[in-house]
Amino acid sequence: MNPTNTDARRGTGELPEKRPVSIAPDGTVHPVPSGDDARSAFEEIALKAEEHRRRGGQVVLVQGLGFVGAAVAATIADAKAVDGAPAYFVIGIDLPTPGSYWKVEKINAGLAPIDSTDPVLARLTHDAVHETANLRATTCRDAYGLADVIVVDVHLDVAGRTSDNGIHVELEPFREAIRTVGRLMRPDALVVVETTVPPGTCENVVLPVLREERLRRGIEEPVLLAHAYERVMPGPNYVSSIRSYPRTYSGVDERSSNQARAFLATFVDSSNGDLLWRLENPLSSELGKLLENSYRAANIAFIHEWTLLAEKIGVNLFEIIDSIRVRTGTHDNMRYPGFGVGGYCLTKDSLLAQWGVTHLLESDAVLETTLDALRTNALMPMHAVELVKEVAPNGLGGARIAVCGVSYVPDVADTRNSPTEALVDALLAEGAELRVHDPSVRTWLERADVPIVQDLEAALADADGVVLAVGHRAYRELGASSLTQLTAQPAFVVDAQNVLSDESARELHAAGWLVVGVGKGHWRRDGMHRRK
Amino acid sequence: MNPTNTDARRGTGELPEKRPVSIAPDGTVHPVPSGDDARSAFEEIALKAEEHRRRGGQVVLVQGLGFVGAAVAATIADAKAVDGAPAYFVIGIDLPTPGSYWKVEKINAGLAPIDSTDPVLARLTHDAVHETANLRATTCRDAYGLADVIVVDVHLDVAGRTSDNGIHVELEPFREAIRTVGRLMRPDALVVVETTVPPGTCENVVLPVLREERLRRGIEEPVLLAHAYERVMPGPNYVSSIRSYPRTYSGVDERSSNQARAFLATFVDSSNGDLLWRLENPLSSELGKLLENSYRAANIAFIHEWTLLAEKIGVNLFEIIDSIRVRTGTHDNMRYPGFGVGGYCLTKDSLLAQWGVTHLLESDAVLETTLDALRTNALMPMHAVELVKEVAPNGLGGARIAVCGVSYVPDVADTRNSPTEALVDALLAEGAELRVHDPSVRTWLERADVPIVQDLEAALADADGVVLAVGHRAYRELGASSLTQLTAQPAFVVDAQNVLSDESARELHAAGWLVVGVGKGHWRRDGMHRRK
Repeated sequence: MNPTNTDARRGTGELPEKRPVSIAPDGTVHPVPSGDDARSAFEEIALKAEEHRRRGGQVVLVQGLGFVGAAVAATIADAKAVDGAPAYFVIGIDLPTPGSYWKVEKINAGLAPIDSTDPVLARLTHDAVHETANLRATTCRDAYGLADVIVVDVHLDVAGRTSDNGIHVELEPFREAIRTVGRLMRPDALVVVETTVPPGTCENVVLPVLREERLRRGIEEPVLLAHAYERVMPGPNYVSSIRSYPRTYSGVDERSSNQARAFLATFVDSSNGDLLWRLENPLSSELGKLLENSYRAANIAFIHEWTLLAEKIGVNLFEIIDSIRVRTGTHDNMRYPGFGVGGYCLTKDSLLAQWGVTHLLESDAVLETTLDALRTNALMPMHAVELVKEVAPNGLGGARIAVCGVSYVPDVADTRNSPTEALVDALLAEGAELRVHDPSVRTWLERADVPIVQDLEAALADADGVVLAVGHRAYRELGASSLTQLTAQPAFVVDAQNVLSDESARELHAAGWLVVGVGKGHWRRDGMHRRK
Repeated sequence: MNPTNTDARRGTGELPEKRPVSIAPDGTVHPVPSGDDARSAFEEIALKAEEHRRRGGQVVLVQGLGFVGAAVAATIADAKAVDGAPAYFVIGIDLPTPGSYWKVEKINAGLAPIDSTDPVLARLTHDAVHETANLRATTCRDAYGLADVIVVDVHLDVAGRTSDNGIHVELEPFREAIRTVGRLMRPDALVVVETTVPPGTCENVVLPVLREERLRRGIEEPVLLAHAYERVMPGPNYVSSIRSYPRTYSGVDERSSNQARAFLATFVDSSNGDLLWRLENPLSSELGKLLENSYRAANIAFIHEWTLLAEKIGVNLFEIIDSIRVRTGTHDNMRYPGFGVGGYCLTKDSLLAQWGVTHLLESDAVLETTLDALRTNALMPMHAVELVKEVAPNGLGGARIAVCGVSYVPDVADTRNSPTEALVDALLAEGAELRVHDPSVRTWLERADVPIVQDLEAALADADGVVLAVGHRAYRELGASSLTQLTAQPAFVVDAQNVLSDESARELHAAGWLVVGVGKGHWRRDGMHRRK
């Protein structure tokens, strides 16, 4: 790890400059420009946008350059008109804040501000900036006035994700972002909300705010507004997940729906059939996204009690599930035993649903089963902690434990709400000495105080035990002999994510290790959790 | 309805004969034979079986001729040897009781004792009895001694399916059936348990019982025993669901597993790849079946609270789910809003799982979420009752209500645990006057005191309201104009199973009807539950 970067991240006060700086995850430092600087840099963008429009093209503004917005901006920039030229001039906009500004500079340098293994995302961003020159980013609000289409990808999160003490959604920053749109948008611009929002947001929040701001400007014509949700998947198919997945949308009126459809059709691939699904109203579209992710979360939660059962009665739940998943169409999405749920969506979307139902729609409906599932998922890592406690020979206090895997998806450097967070917190609270490793993560943004050991050998060398927390290929390829060679003495291993084969588990146990695994009841039945 | 049949079904005391009779669902009356009669009828079967064996063929006995056993027997009888001749002589056995004996006579007449729309089942049964003459049924226990393979399809149910007061499984009749096998089986016969059983049954119940009975006979060689579960689906693909679905199995030892596989391979279709999935032990196979059906039941339950939500906030949950189901592999098994769960499996298998875990495996594991789902499913029909109460203009007392649909699957005459039971019970308890109709059900075995009106016109003529409880084609094709023509006056309709189109709903409302539907929030939003 580079100590300079870490120091910089801890606070900007230690740096000599007076201007605030924005530090990217890769450690690069970007002074945040003043409003005047941003405006003068923006002039060139405005000229290009107007030139594009004069030639009959349209201008798209993407508001919010996070995991979705940055990728969507590059994808839209790649859309082609009939003549093969870029269909749009695309402007990405974000806030001139330490947390966000670096994304603007990355994009303007032709770099995707997302650490993705998808080569297409890097290529599209590079080409749109350096080849076709139709993608630029800015912090200057004047950009809103240039856009024919404004795509809202503003961050909207839940505070207190799995707390039982009520759900709190801080809607004000989102509302303020929409207010900015209303103050500056062209009267005939189409607003497409792509952010995952609580049900009721488009019709009960966005529409009134836009109307109010436009009325202040004397604009009385109806707002063109639609909700259209993305299904971005982190990983090697990032851009494809934007372009080739079905897309649900709905406008607040027929005209908005039609214009949203026409816009989406320019970058959603329809070569294998129409992927655009219109629903009756934005509320249905908003709710669809939340139901979709709630279903996935509930299916993950369902298997947890069967996991505990399998461990207790000594059966291999993985092979049983494999035999059930052959029933395509009804059972092939059954989840395997696991270690919890990470990421941005599945950990919060059910909460957004309940919050919107209560606070925006003022309904007394309660999604009890759905919220129970989220609680179950949040508690899953604690089962791995129980397994560690069981096999740690001298308790957790002072135990040297290698935690292998920090991201929430195998072989993807995305650590948002990773279940490893809960595991690490619990092990540290019990006094364990951790060596946290991940082959694809250099710094752990969500736990900046927990160093990531870059070298697996160093992480394992003096370990009393190992927790395999992510199914990264590097771990799956390890095998028993590597593990025994890399550790100084027989240790214990908790396989929380089906990383070890049965053969490796048996070899480790034969070499004196204690071996347990989530859902691996047969290992327990065969006595691998006990010394030979 | 034929009053003679009904009287006969109510009790055999009214009939002149002294011998007990067994009455088939079609009303035919079959005197139960004495033991001597059965034995003399069996002699011919024994001769044929021995003849088949002398020619190098094998004899299969299917124990229990219910919904699974009768179909499995006909399917096995259709299996061919290399020379194209029948591979097996198949004997179906059941008890000489009023409840079961009629099945023996039906099969011996070449008729499937299952009211199925699958023409293949009827053909296979007919041909095996009348053409190839390798399928016969009997009540004579001597048959056990003829069999090379004994397939156990004995009924095993849960008493008190959805009660909170604990789960009770009466295992004794099943254990007694296994004891009979042990007393009479050939020492080298393979026993394949196909009945859905609580986890632990094969190894903790069947195996010790068989060993004990065989030891009494001086047989010390290991029992050949396997569990292999079927995935029979009532409906037009009955036989195909036995032959062409993947089949999970496991023996108590390697030899049993191998022999079970060899046997299954003779009638499970492997032309499109190997469908036989071997698991580590029978416990895994038993648990797999229960997990499979529990998953389905949980997925059905999941959507219920979203159904109530959709109705409260006024959205059409059906169109939302349609838009989500396009995500194949993860979301295409999402269930639609509905009226509850019927049938033999999904209503009980989670209870069997919990009972076996507690009583056969003596584990303290609790399948809380899974059992919650069953409770939710059992309560679903009560939501339809609430909707009826809401729109019945003068309350339920004395209200003439046409209940359309009794079976639990559209266009299939299977009424086992149909959700209509709970609806009818509740409506009757509130004093409603019901006209219960189903196009494919003549008598309702589970509610023999509730007459089935055969004529839809008669059911609707004087109705104050209609509950559409099953999506039978006859109802889906009805349309608004038929409904208004068939009823004397504007009425109400509760669409519990997505039977009516939006257009029909609007037409009915325009004609003065009150219209509500499960999951049809948009109908409520549009005011169809109120008089115009």
